[in-house]
Amino acid sequence: MEINIQKRVLEKNETEADKNRAFFKDQKVFVLNMMSSPGSGKTETLCKTLARLMPDVRVGVIVGDVCTTNDADRLEITGAKVTQINTDQFGGDCHLAAHLIDASARELGCDDLDLLIVENIGNLVCPAEFDIGEDARAVVLSVTEGEDKPLKYPLMFQVADAAILNKIDLLPYLDFDAPLAVENMKTVHPGMPVFEISAKTEEGFEPWLEWLKTRVREKLG
Amino acid sequence: MEINIQKRVLEKNETEADKNRAFFKDQKVFVLNMMSSPGSGKTETLCKTLARLMPDVRVGVIVGDVCTTNDADRLEITGAKVTQINTDQFGGDCHLAAHLIDASARELGCDDLDLLIVENIGNLVCPAEFDIGEDARAVVLSVTEGEDKPLKYPLMFQVADAAILNKIDLLPYLDFDAPLAVENMKTVHPGMPVFEISAKTEEGFEPWLEWLKTRVREKLG
Repeated sequence: MEINIQKRVLEKNETEADKNRAFFKDQKVFVLNMMSSPGSGKTETLCKTLARLMPDVRVGVIVGDVCTTNDADRLEITGAKVTQINTDQFGGDCHLAAHLIDASARELGCDDLDLLIVENIGNLVCPAEFDIGEDARAVVLSVTEGEDKPLKYPLMFQVADAAILNKIDLLPYLDFDAPLAVENMKTVHPGMPVFEISAKTEEGFEPWLEWLKTRVREKLG
Repeated sequence: MEINIQKRVLEKNETEADKNRAFFKDQKVFVLNMMSSPGSGKTETLCKTLARLMPDVRVGVIVGDVCTTNDADRLEITGAKVTQINTDQFGGDCHLAAHLIDASARELGCDDLDLLIVENIGNLVCPAEFDIGEDARAVVLSVTEGEDKPLKYPLMFQVADAAILNKIDLLPYLDFDAPLAVENMKTVHPGMPVFEISAKTEEGFEPWLEWLKTRVREKLG
């Protein structure tokens, strides 16, 4: 029963995602969906990314959380346009569905943006199943989470166009095999670029920023 | 629409959970549901917990993952009876539903167990909504995940009977305010016991083991 219900929900979401894709094309904005476990450092990565992209690239952010506006508050400091979705009012949803993105993107306004980043709800399972009409997906994995996560949660890494391995400043204090983590990512998604960074120290940021700027440029021309 | 569907799925799950509760009562086994984000250290905490509880307490484990049997393989080394559920075959489910626990508990056999631990799928949202007929719930939060997680994912901390703050051996290398994290847990769930531990060094294990043994003894007499 659950699987049939899931199929219907996903089909409905796909129709909404197609509408979003048309809207984003019309608005000439590139949309990046950032996903990860809770606490992998999405918000800190975004804060540093925005600081280095703006004002050359005009960025807006839609932040998803079950509760609180903590992440939106942190991101607003960068000067980017930010709006928050709390899914608490929609039954505590564990992902951002396409219709929520539609409402938030229109509220935020996209005509003065080059790049719209969606910081999804912290969850390595469900958000991978929900297309939101984005142009690219990035998954963030922290070095504190263990090398085996790409094998245990393969769908998230399969749907991602790029992966970020974050918190590499902590490597000296952990029994974490970074090359094995990267190998596991490439096992489930051959050819996917993996950026090893520290959002805290900004080590390794250049290749990640370059990848993102290139993708935006390819769409916007 | 999604919320109505969710309600029906949860109602059906509740009926199955009631059946599990009756089965576990009949089998005279205490059931603990362990939940957390991916990579917070549930498996390592369990390995160390089992090594210190057995053979005085006879323990079995049901391990849930979307894919792989990595965690079950690690837990089997302790000598405990272990069985693995992979939800990949059920549409990549993000939680363990009560009917899956029923099938696995019967397969594992509970008549020679005092304590059955369910290591749930790494996810701080969905598993909190699914009663599996357990006697107690524990949530694990790692110090690398940030102090605000109890406020952002309150349901998980509200339904938990105890919380474990893990990886305290990493505190010297992090900007993490442990007292604030504990305060946030107690804000969403006043009176909940919080155990600050390192699964790696086994620091702080005694109060956690004592709590668990007391709860098992209370049920089994």
